[in-house]
Amino acid sequence: MQAEVLSVGTELLLGQTVNTDTTIVAKALSGLGIDLLYAAVVGDNVGRLEKAVWDALDRSDILITTGGLGPTGDDLTKETVAAAAGKKLVLHQPSYDRLKEYFARGGLSENQIKQAMLPEGCTVLQNDNGTAPGCAFQTAQGKIVIMLPGPPSELEPMLKNYAVPYLAKFQNAVIASHSVHVYGRGEAAVALMIDDLTQNSNPTAAPYAKEGEMFVRVTAKAANEAEADAMCAPVVEEIRRRVGSFVYGVDVDSLEELVVRELKKAGKTLATAESCTGGLLAKRITDVPGSSDVFEMGCVTYANRVKEALLGVPHETLEAHGAVSEQTARAMAEGIVRRSGADIGVGITGIAGPGGGTAEKPVGLVYIALSDGENTWVAKRQPAGRMKSREWHRHCAASKALDMVRRYLAGLPVDEA
Amino acid sequence: MQAEVLSVGTELLLGQTVNTDTTIVAKALSGLGIDLLYAAVVGDNVGRLEKAVWDALDRSDILITTGGLGPTGDDLTKETVAAAAGKKLVLHQPSYDRLKEYFARGGLSENQIKQAMLPEGCTVLQNDNGTAPGCAFQTAQGKIVIMLPGPPSELEPMLKNYAVPYLAKFQNAVIASHSVHVYGRGEAAVALMIDDLTQNSNPTAAPYAKEGEMFVRVTAKAANEAEADAMCAPVVEEIRRRVGSFVYGVDVDSLEELVVRELKKAGKTLATAESCTGGLLAKRITDVPGSSDVFEMGCVTYANRVKEALLGVPHETLEAHGAVSEQTARAMAEGIVRRSGADIGVGITGIAGPGGGTAEKPVGLVYIALSDGENTWVAKRQPAGRMKSREWHRHCAASKALDMVRRYLAGLPVDEA
Repeated sequence: MQAEVLSVGTELLLGQTVNTDTTIVAKALSGLGIDLLYAAVVGDNVGRLEKAVWDALDRSDILITTGGLGPTGDDLTKETVAAAAGKKLVLHQPSYDRLKEYFARGGLSENQIKQAMLPEGCTVLQNDNGTAPGCAFQTAQGKIVIMLPGPPSELEPMLKNYAVPYLAKFQNAVIASHSVHVYGRGEAAVALMIDDLTQNSNPTAAPYAKEGEMFVRVTAKAANEAEADAMCAPVVEEIRRRVGSFVYGVDVDSLEELVVRELKKAGKTLATAESCTGGLLAKRITDVPGSSDVFEMGCVTYANRVKEALLGVPHETLEAHGAVSEQTARAMAEGIVRRSGADIGVGITGIAGPGGGTAEKPVGLVYIALSDGENTWVAKRQPAGRMKSREWHRHCAASKALDMVRRYLAGLPVDEA
Repeated sequence: MQAEVLSVGTELLLGQTVNTDTTIVAKALSGLGIDLLYAAVVGDNVGRLEKAVWDALDRSDILITTGGLGPTGDDLTKETVAAAAGKKLVLHQPSYDRLKEYFARGGLSENQIKQAMLPEGCTVLQNDNGTAPGCAFQTAQGKIVIMLPGPPSELEPMLKNYAVPYLAKFQNAVIASHSVHVYGRGEAAVALMIDDLTQNSNPTAAPYAKEGEMFVRVTAKAANEAEADAMCAPVVEEIRRRVGSFVYGVDVDSLEELVVRELKKAGKTLATAESCTGGLLAKRITDVPGSSDVFEMGCVTYANRVKEALLGVPHETLEAHGAVSEQTARAMAEGIVRRSGADIGVGITGIAGPGGGTAEKPVGLVYIALSDGENTWVAKRQPAGRMKSREWHRHCAASKALDMVRRYLAGLPVDEA
């Protein structure tokens, strides 16, 4: 089956909002094995929306709209799509009751009630995070139409819990997809290692770059999920075998999630001392719910004075080698272990740019150290050939630190290049 | 003039990449006063791309494509669009020379050379951040076609430096746009305050919500930039007057940028002690280049033990009131000022969720304190009615802290509700 996504909202065409809805829906369709051939954005304009709906229903089997289900006058997706698909809107009593409950303390205006008006005979997709329900139905021509709300916090759970199960019923085959996440080897290098695997059509294996990391997506199509999973398993194993210790996880969200999980398993705690990353490493670790069990403390020590006073970095080290040096990174990691009492300490110092670089110490040069109180390892990140942003250097330095913690916990060489 | 954007790339339809290119181009068009009526995404498929180009050239004055200019076989935008627009590709010598220079150490394959093949007679848009140049030309029917590379780090500067000036020549009128940024008053509240101003058509004033803040965009159209700016000025002033001290800046990028600037102006330094925000506040401040001049140090103190040892939060305070309390926030702010020697210290403690909430101290409850060593102010953030994410609570708490620093530096009441 072929699908298209139509996002409705003038704010998307003014550049005020990034269209993450399409990405979220695209991912879900890909997981279902449904081809998304086309994605479009139109503003809050009946004529253009109507035209786009006709085009979509003409050329695709499935139309998924995002946005325009709310209470205001701008919200005209439901009315327009229903009309174009030949459906009448009728009051959906349970949705109306939910609205009444939501607005129990007042505010249930005529506009709000409009959200409970839904295409006759549709499957209502409940909104567990907002007031506007979604809906799904088939047109007289057998085309599937699904309407989802615009705010990603409402769209994402509705899609997952209600729209995907609705669509799955139309699929004869099921898709299973697994991601093998790699740190320390780039997309091009891994693509070479698994070249033969990427030639297969079921399961497929496809390498992707992702913010200083890469992952391989393995996808199989079969009659049921167990069978599809069983087809993926040997390919995933083969990739793990070939890429070796650079594989940090399968189907994990991020390096930080993996690190928090492994710290918990090992019963160990972590502390961080950051200079150029300025709290980004601590932020990423504490993005993970429950990280408070394993994250002892973090310090952002920009000034040399603070590096000395708080972390005990020797004045002589800073004088002799500078703040951006292997020696300072080492002293920061060792200092934060002493100061915090954590099992593992990480120290990061470098030049994130855009200013502050020299020929000897260019923008992008970062030293990252890990200490367990007994041993300390220091890795050096060199700037890549191409101009990269401050954000990029900071992100990559924090990722490298996380990977060092992972390697340490797994008993691997802490810094394998 | 009416424009549309066509983004080319299968990765966008698989949900692997968020389409920020469209947002970037949309913003630029909006700044030029060009209406963007339609944005679409197609995969790396000649047939569908061709069809999309024909549709676009049929209904719009300007077509801007993003992506597919690179060296690989998947990159087929230039060939397809040029053919659809009736243009031949010819070798562009300066682009070829640039490629030779870039690949001086080897690697200039046949595929790479393809990037120097450009539509005959086009204006070449130099790529200062990558190998694939863009281009701009007019079709025989007078339609404007612009092709930009996919990576945002290449697209954004090319758009700003070369494509926008190219488009500006076709515009009789110029658009000036200014944003009045507000913290502490929501979109709905400000919309009421400036209701009459939002009714005007030139200049327009439009309120927008943005991650726990809001801004009002004032836009004027005139014969030249100075005139358009002069039309905006009194409206911007009037909004400042009505919204008062909740306006934190005009045409600033973010609260953190403003705070770093104001700290520099005042010659003051800042230090932070974070619990639930876990380094996010430090990260946001150090996102700003040059923040090292004013950011003394940051601490992420999750564990009570660390709050006591590092910040000197009294054991009795933690026992009597808990880690999430006004008293603890106060002691954290005062402790970090003592510890760091900075002029201003901020302490944040709260419950970011999803776990850890109670009836008395629900998820989203955050206390934020600011101390200058003499006086300390504490603000309390209550969770809003709707379920919000961990990310949201952390972001809003960090924003509140930044706003308190701004207010302190401006001599305003530090926590005005």
